[in-house]
Amino acid sequence: MKSKAEEQHVVAVVQRIREFGLKEHISYGVEHTIIGIIGQIFPELKDRLQLMPGVEEVIQVSKPYKLASREFHPLDTTVKVGNVVIGGKDIVVMAGPCAVESEEQLLTTAVAVKAAGATVLRGGAYKPSTSPYNFRGLGETGLKILAMAKKETGMPIITEVLAVQDVERVARYADILQIGARNMQNFVLLDEVGKTKKPVMLKRGLSATIQEWLLAAEYILSEGNEDLILCERGIRTFETATRNTLDVSAIPLIERLSHLPIIADPSHGTGQWYLVPPVAMAAVAAGADGLLIEVHPNPERALKDGPQSLTFANFESLMKSLGPVASAVGRSLAKPAPQK
Amino acid sequence: MKSKAEEQHVVAVVQRIREFGLKEHISYGVEHTIIGIIGQIFPELKDRLQLMPGVEEVIQVSKPYKLASREFHPLDTTVKVGNVVIGGKDIVVMAGPCAVESEEQLLTTAVAVKAAGATVLRGGAYKPSTSPYNFRGLGETGLKILAMAKKETGMPIITEVLAVQDVERVARYADILQIGARNMQNFVLLDEVGKTKKPVMLKRGLSATIQEWLLAAEYILSEGNEDLILCERGIRTFETATRNTLDVSAIPLIERLSHLPIIADPSHGTGQWYLVPPVAMAAVAAGADGLLIEVHPNPERALKDGPQSLTFANFESLMKSLGPVASAVGRSLAKPAPQK
Amino acid sequence: MKSKAEEQHVVAVVQRIREFGLKEHISYGVEHTIIGIIGQIFPELKDRLQLMPGVEEVIQVSKPYKLASREFHPLDTTVKVGNVVIGGKDIVVMAGPCAVESEEQLLTTAVAVKAAGATVLRGGAYKPSTSPYNFRGLGETGLKILAMAKKETGMPIITEVLAVQDVERVARYADILQIGARNMQNFVLLDEVGKTKKPVMLKRGLSATIQEWLLAAEYILSEGNEDLILCERGIRTFETATRNTLDVSAIPLIERLSHLPIIADPSHGTGQWYLVPPVAMAAVAAGADGLLIEVHPNPERALKDGPQSLTFANFESLMKSLGPVASAVGRSLAKPAPQK
Amino acid sequence: MKSKAEEQHVVAVVQRIREFGLKEHISYGVEHTIIGIIGQIFPELKDRLQLMPGVEEVIQVSKPYKLASREFHPLDTTVKVGNVVIGGKDIVVMAGPCAVESEEQLLTTAVAVKAAGATVLRGGAYKPSTSPYNFRGLGETGLKILAMAKKETGMPIITEVLAVQDVERVARYADILQIGARNMQNFVLLDEVGKTKKPVMLKRGLSATIQEWLLAAEYILSEGNEDLILCERGIRTFETATRNTLDVSAIPLIERLSHLPIIADPSHGTGQWYLVPPVAMAAVAAGADGLLIEVHPNPERALKDGPQSLTFANFESLMKSLGPVASAVGRSLAKPAPQK
Repeated sequence: MKSKAEEQHVVAVVQRIREFGLKEHISYGVEHTIIGIIGQIFPELKDRLQLMPGVEEVIQVSKPYKLASREFHPLDTTVKVGNVVIGGKDIVVMAGPCAVESEEQLLTTAVAVKAAGATVLRGGAYKPSTSPYNFRGLGETGLKILAMAKKETGMPIITEVLAVQDVERVARYADILQIGARNMQNFVLLDEVGKTKKPVMLKRGLSATIQEWLLAAEYILSEGNEDLILCERGIRTFETATRNTLDVSAIPLIERLSHLPIIADPSHGTGQWYLVPPVAMAAVAAGADGLLIEVHPNPERALKDGPQSLTFANFESLMKSLGPVASAVGRSLAKPAPQK
Repeated sequence: MKSKAEEQHVVAVVQRIREFGLKEHISYGVEHTIIGIIGQIFPELKDRLQLMPGVEEVIQVSKPYKLASREFHPLDTTVKVGNVVIGGKDIVVMAGPCAVESEEQLLTTAVAVKAAGATVLRGGAYKPSTSPYNFRGLGETGLKILAMAKKETGMPIITEVLAVQDVERVARYADILQIGARNMQNFVLLDEVGKTKKPVMLKRGLSATIQEWLLAAEYILSEGNEDLILCERGIRTFETATRNTLDVSAIPLIERLSHLPIIADPSHGTGQWYLVPPVAMAAVAAGADGLLIEVHPNPERALKDGPQSLTFANFESLMKSLGPVASAVGRSLAKPAPQK
Repeated sequence: MKSKAEEQHVVAVVQRIREFGLKEHISYGVEHTIIGIIGQIFPELKDRLQLMPGVEEVIQVSKPYKLASREFHPLDTTVKVGNVVIGGKDIVVMAGPCAVESEEQLLTTAVAVKAAGATVLRGGAYKPSTSPYNFRGLGETGLKILAMAKKETGMPIITEVLAVQDVERVARYADILQIGARNMQNFVLLDEVGKTKKPVMLKRGLSATIQEWLLAAEYILSEGNEDLILCERGIRTFETATRNTLDVSAIPLIERLSHLPIIADPSHGTGQWYLVPPVAMAAVAAGADGLLIEVHPNPERALKDGPQSLTFANFESLMKSLGPVASAVGRSLAKPAPQK
Repeated sequence: MKSKAEEQHVVAVVQRIREFGLKEHISYGVEHTIIGIIGQIFPELKDRLQLMPGVEEVIQVSKPYKLASREFHPLDTTVKVGNVVIGGKDIVVMAGPCAVESEEQLLTTAVAVKAAGATVLRGGAYKPSTSPYNFRGLGETGLKILAMAKKETGMPIITEVLAVQDVERVARYADILQIGARNMQNFVLLDEVGKTKKPVMLKRGLSATIQEWLLAAEYILSEGNEDLILCERGIRTFETATRNTLDVSAIPLIERLSHLPIIADPSHGTGQWYLVPPVAMAAVAAGADGLLIEVHPNPERALKDGPQSLTFANFESLMKSLGPVASAVGRSLAKPAPQK
């Protein structure tokens, strides 16, 4: 309460709290009176109290998410995709082109990243694009090419779903549904992927706080889908030398606050191919359960995100460097799936 | 080109440019060689050149949006909604509750804001919510209540559409479709509202640059819908004393770069009811074509956004203050619609 | 306390609080125990408690600044400089070049801005510069030119002081000492200007929160200098279309939290001359007590900040537009000082 | 030039360029004419051209810093402090309390961090503090205690200098002068430490871009002091769960752009002791040349920054974890100095 709050204001707040079926606990200080609210709080109560006369500030002490929190689910969640386990001891590398451009492009990439040690194949069929005039993906044709590459290499597929009406179709082809940064608060889409039985990877929004991210996760979890993976992909800051600023501290912080697996995307996190390997190694050293990395047979000719894509040679070299870092933190790189 | 770029690198870049059917213009400097590209640029070319050996940086000189730009459309766009004109000489105030909660709540608010001088009624039937446990709107029931209030007061209705599958239904009831900040880059939704014949109000994303915002507008315009209004509603910054930071300079900047009407939302822009009136006046003084303001019969009991909602008395008092500010910048407040 | 905090942890925290001579008030909730601390808090106690076993979070309820707060000083502070009063009913316009470049440049500008209605003359003799290779000001020569212009026009002078060792010298010439954004947390410099008897204008730091800004003000006030003016000059955000983002809501927020006068600098706040007039008008409509505006006889040839400087004609035109906006909010422009 | 620029505008710009003794190179495009400027550019020319009629944008192609850039100084700089080499193959860990509080506190910490493998002792005698009411350091007494600890353990000392008038005194005691984040653009102080012969560690400002940071380094280098170390310590973003956001990509980016050693401060970078070890490991994996870590005998009772300080046990455990990460990236931890 404000330093000048009168007794009648305190009484009114207490009354309001009781209307909601809750109990109060009053603490009289020298300058301020503090009213604690005891019990499960109705979400709108906070805003309402804020405006009552004499109220200085309403502070929430309990965390607003439950299903995503480690407090209520102390053991690590692992997500199984084929014979790949995400969130366990092994670090899972998901690699492939930003966008599926052609059969040849995807198949050569799939073979190359598998040979270098990747265990999941990434590739976008539906692409968000800042401008309406840019490439927006091959759509279902892209999904079919992904299915072909999966058949060829035995690698499970991760691909983005942009719209509610595409969820069913994408889920028919994909092993992991990716929710992109721009859709982290597309709540209708979160509900929808929450209703599928497919694993979901939820990227952090461009300017989402850790708490908002975990609340977005809560949407998916509360629809009954527990196969959820989080992905730190950089946040928007004032710095323009990199495309985004990868928040490396988010990795151990998510591990502390949540039981969900956390992977890192150094490609979007930096926007520059030459920054991808050191930042990938940093993410593993910080405890990431996996990496999402863009690889292209010819980045100079990529239809999307060329500047942040690794060549096959650079990806192979990164994979060789990653092993020792994983060992240094008591982990190892997941083994590629055996050819089906 | 880099300071140490060799002639062969320059030749390769020139060749790539010509492959795209474009022409180059080379400028040899003391430290750097600069290669200009002449003509309409294929969007992916930039990324591709970036990676060629010897290339230092690729800088785009032309703006990436056309339909939204004032350069290609010098005259102001005005959007007509019933007998209200947005983007003309008169300043249009859109007011109402954040969320439609009940018939009584909306009707009393509609009558009150109309009496105070508002010309468009706002109210959310589908609400985005950070937490899955909070109120998410009354849905179609809310739309019906809005229709009732429209019938009662003659005010056109603005309401948010969250999902592609709701566009048709919302468009049946609404006079203006609102795209919220979290959906500014929900490109599938932008396409869809672009295909309707309804006026659209596009809010700036939480961390969207002016250029990204105008590119999002370009999505809607390029689908053929020219009845587009922009709305500055605050951006996310490090400051936590306000909910967002209303970027007042965006108002004159949009007017310079684009022909589209621009309105301001001081309710979301500040998050505090006591900051709404001064910031609303600031927006009008900066040249805004209108305001979007949250008003509630009893903010303390609002299901959403109570802390930033004005009471009827505070809204009436704001409207009285706004008139002189509008006059000071050579404009006037739009007259309320006559009762139908 | 954490949800699993044990009784012994609660006891230990209580003991620590008592060691500091304070009293506790315990509130047992269903999930959490909350321990209130009553009395004037030793600043380091917060950090110390944070680390004790069982502690979840330490939240400060009282504001950390006192002398700057309106709570402890309800009446507006006014600062008198010659016959100009800052923080009263009249809006004070401070104008002049970014940097003093020459006698002719400053004198012609002083005469022009006075004729247009400015009441304080600004001009930098010591200039901060991002690069060591740029112009850093004329130093004491610049101060002497300022003194000349003051003698000629009767206008009081505001100029920046960059270093402790310059405070005495600058104070000999200036009527208001300006602390620039980059020095807002140069605490040694704050102490030093706090010890002078000169009015001080403290600019908000590039990434300073409102609270940090008021704490910086507290440094100056606590040294006994009460002639303090605050200046909002834009904060650093992700947006690159403007040099900074002027936080217009800071104006009414400072008025609510503090008794100190608040002025706005739309020149640095936007970085573009064509955005200065609308943003200046916005600041006045939001309640600013004054404006700080860069004016140059020939912005194209300015040694510093040309792109954000107004020509004489543009400044004159702005001053004409400002009058009606000031009237609209019940204020008027301060009258220029009579020629001495 | 703008798309509608007339020939006379082009001529005027060319004339202005020639006035500065430079040469132009004109490129006529379909939409735009581009005028290249050839030669060493006078810093103010950019701003001046910006304002000429017909000019759309002035883009600088060359980097504004030279002495700090790898382009002009391809080999890595190493800084020698006693027998410690910073910027070589070995990773240097600097550890100690945020502030020197007492002889006992510092000596026990020095002994403990040395035993665990630290090679440089940190400790603040002059402390910046957001509030004037908080602890601001022991001053010269603190310096004397640092000297004692150096004598006792043989470890070189790093300590912050806050003010020009303290530089000489601090330089008498310190082996490395630290410039804190809040002083990164205190240009007078940069000049002053540039004139000493002491190694300097320059922390990145809270909201400084990489380019501004390297320009601040340029101040020190251009005064003749080449013993310069950079320190990434986190930037200010919208995220409030951590004190700052450590920009891990800055480490490889600085290595690419500059020859200067780069170290990381995960204590300020995260603000939470439990995030320090994983982020420290991340920084080493990303290529950092060293770490700056806060250690306190009893963080709960620290006068400053307790929440981000490691206990002796936690520091020892971190040092054990760091070795394998250093090896994984082909480096090793620097050996502690032999007892003098």
